Amino acid sequence: MRNFEFCNKTKIIFGKETEERAGSETAQYAKRILLHHSGGHPVASGLINKIKESLKKTGVEWVELTGVQPNPLLSLVNKGIEIVKKEKLEFILAAGGGSAIDSAKAIAVGAVNEGDIWDFFERKRTTDKALPVGTVLTIPAAGSESSLSCVITNEAGPWKRSINYPCIRPVFSILNPELTYSLPPYQTACGIVDMMAHIMERYFTKEPNVELTDELCEGALRTIIRNARKIFSGGENDYAARAEIMWAGALAHNGLLDTGRIGDWASHALDHELSALFDIAHGAGLAIIFPAWMKYNIKEDTPRLARFAAKVWGVDGAFYNYEQAAREGIFRMENFFRSIGMPVRFSDTNIDTTRIPEMAKRVVHFGTIGNYRKLEEKDALAIYKLAAERDEW
Amino acid sequence: MRNFEFCNKTKIIFGKETEERAGSETAQYAKRILLHHSGGHPVASGLINKIKESLKKTGVEWVELTGVQPNPLLSLVNKGIEIVKKEKLEFILAAGGGSAIDSAKAIAVGAVNEGDIWDFFERKRTTDKALPVGTVLTIPAAGSESSLSCVITNEAGPWKRSINYPCIRPVFSILNPELTYSLPPYQTACGIVDMMAHIMERYFTKEPNVELTDELCEGALRTIIRNARKIFSGGENDYAARAEIMWAGALAHNGLLDTGRIGDWASHALDHELSALFDIAHGAGLAIIFPAWMKYNIKEDTPRLARFAAKVWGVDGAFYNYEQAAREGIFRMENFFRSIGMPVRFSDTNIDTTRIPEMAKRVVHFGTIGNYRKLEEKDALAIYKLAAERDEW
Repeated sequence: MRNFEFCNKTKIIFGKETEERAGSETAQYAKRILLHHSGGHPVASGLINKIKESLKKTGVEWVELTGVQPNPLLSLVNKGIEIVKKEKLEFILAAGGGSAIDSAKAIAVGAVNEGDIWDFFERKRTTDKALPVGTVLTIPAAGSESSLSCVITNEAGPWKRSINYPCIRPVFSILNPELTYSLPPYQTACGIVDMMAHIMERYFTKEPNVELTDELCEGALRTIIRNARKIFSGGENDYAARAEIMWAGALAHNGLLDTGRIGDWASHALDHELSALFDIAHGAGLAIIFPAWMKYNIKEDTPRLARFAAKVWGVDGAFYNYEQAAREGIFRMENFFRSIGMPVRFSDTNIDTTRIPEMAKRVVHFGTIGNYRKLEEKDALAIYKLAAERDEW
Repeated sequence: MRNFEFCNKTKIIFGKETEERAGSETAQYAKRILLHHSGGHPVASGLINKIKESLKKTGVEWVELTGVQPNPLLSLVNKGIEIVKKEKLEFILAAGGGSAIDSAKAIAVGAVNEGDIWDFFERKRTTDKALPVGTVLTIPAAGSESSLSCVITNEAGPWKRSINYPCIRPVFSILNPELTYSLPPYQTACGIVDMMAHIMERYFTKEPNVELTDELCEGALRTIIRNARKIFSGGENDYAARAEIMWAGALAHNGLLDTGRIGDWASHALDHELSALFDIAHGAGLAIIFPAWMKYNIKEDTPRLARFAAKVWGVDGAFYNYEQAAREGIFRMENFFRSIGMPVRFSDTNIDTTRIPEMAKRVVHFGTIGNYRKLEEKDALAIYKLAAERDEW
């Protein structure tokens, strides 16, 4: 186990009707805020009106910035920064999923740091200053509601890049599982894969003696899988199942599950090229990349993949050799992803496989990717090819 | 799942040689502090000298208050409050186990709240103000290093009472597993039972649909059991095993494992009478009480105890009926406690069984105990009797 620090100051407010507390929680930080969201579903569902009522009650004034899209764009972030500076706003309240929250986090950094915000994403500089951000979560997926991460797409490239600063962890996040009843099944499924990916990125480590976090990761994955099955078997409005998924999504990315180890994150990098070039939803891209990444790693660390198969997918190790168990685990994972409507191969999507060499080159822009196994361009090429072929093993 | 709030601001600094950071972490809060510890082992081991060196380097001055004992006493707390006020100290750094930390927390409350500190423990009033507390942990057990709890013994009674305030959560806690190599086996074992008890108090709930936290609890318990076996099989200086135990002890009581549910805590109350009247170590008392409490509850909620047996103790539910599985689980738990040198019956200790009626009366001083099942005096009597008899079932 590696030495580590763990400190997560986000106040989680979880449960039914908790969105009514948006005003009183925000008022503890500021009286003039930016209210940031897509302008679509949160408005149609009545959530934004509820939040505004709640803000009014506590005397909080807001300026509204709508238009956040999936894979949130740098242009809107820059617009937000301008508004916050001009209006002297002191807090950003994001309502929505990871996109709205990430957009809010980037605005929070830009508002108090002069110069080009994209420099931070290009790793040219770093900061420990940002405006406080609060969130009302509507899509359990990205875990951004209690994470220190933020991913923004610069449409000029297009480039999709991330920053990870403790100062952008939300000060509070309101999680009401009822708000997720109305999610389209495809979005629910993308969220489920996204949170599973956050756990798997942390689970695959070569750090020895991280038993407690292994157990926590495996338990969280089993909980997500069981409750996803409930939701996709007519349980769209099953509060209990939605609540397990929502809480698991926050824990998946709050930092607890990688204490004592270093996560891999190669699959996220591999997926970012899919969303940047083909606008594939993040979760859908991960459902394609993860099986391919695992297949590429079977020989690298067979016991780890066999354990994953046994503890998460119920593969009885005793009746298999390690490699066979590992393959059976990946097979079950693919079947699970398919069962909730996710693609598992490029051919299930609009991805143009002739651009695989270009993606492999782009993904190593900053050097090798991954910590579990350092991947170079040739490795990325092989993984993309595994994702492209239906019957490769 | 119940609505809940979760926010734990304690910064955990975990790993080898981390005690060297005591000075730099403390200096972020204050320049004049109370350094609080037992005066025994932490001095002999050289830890206190290391901490003083580290404080000196960052220009932090300290007043020292030693003499903390297991089941920390109100008289020392009052002495600490007096010193802090007189010397105008701004921070309390505790070095030791739960006793030193709890004593520090009580001093932190008394230092900024006028009047008799014991009033808080008698539930006559409450507060949200305390001096900041930091800790260097030497005994993984109580979980006080990141909890909002504090237990103090008033020797006038003797009464053992607790407070639970967010304002007494330590601002940082330094956890170096190497510091636990030198613990006597009895103390290691008491700590292991204590942290298991913290998880079991939370695990036994009648709240439905708390799957994620159930999984996390079960995984943490399995990790503790496996690594306890390593330590008690010649692994006293096994860093990996000590690290798993130390991290599990902090998570056991940091609030995560009871999100969405309400813990029981009857067993803690039942044990408090053992320590108040017979000075039984907290962990040892819990090793006696928990099996008795579980036996008393088998008919109350057989499936829950059967699940506990299956998931934590590996009892294969398919080959048992639920009640038989539940009993087998309790039997395995008792055997485990015995294997690490813990008592499991009153007859293994100096407890005078003629005082059982008195203990049963004292334990319901504030009314019924327990949330999983509300216990009255007659229930407490029955549980103490189960703990007294060797062959009662």
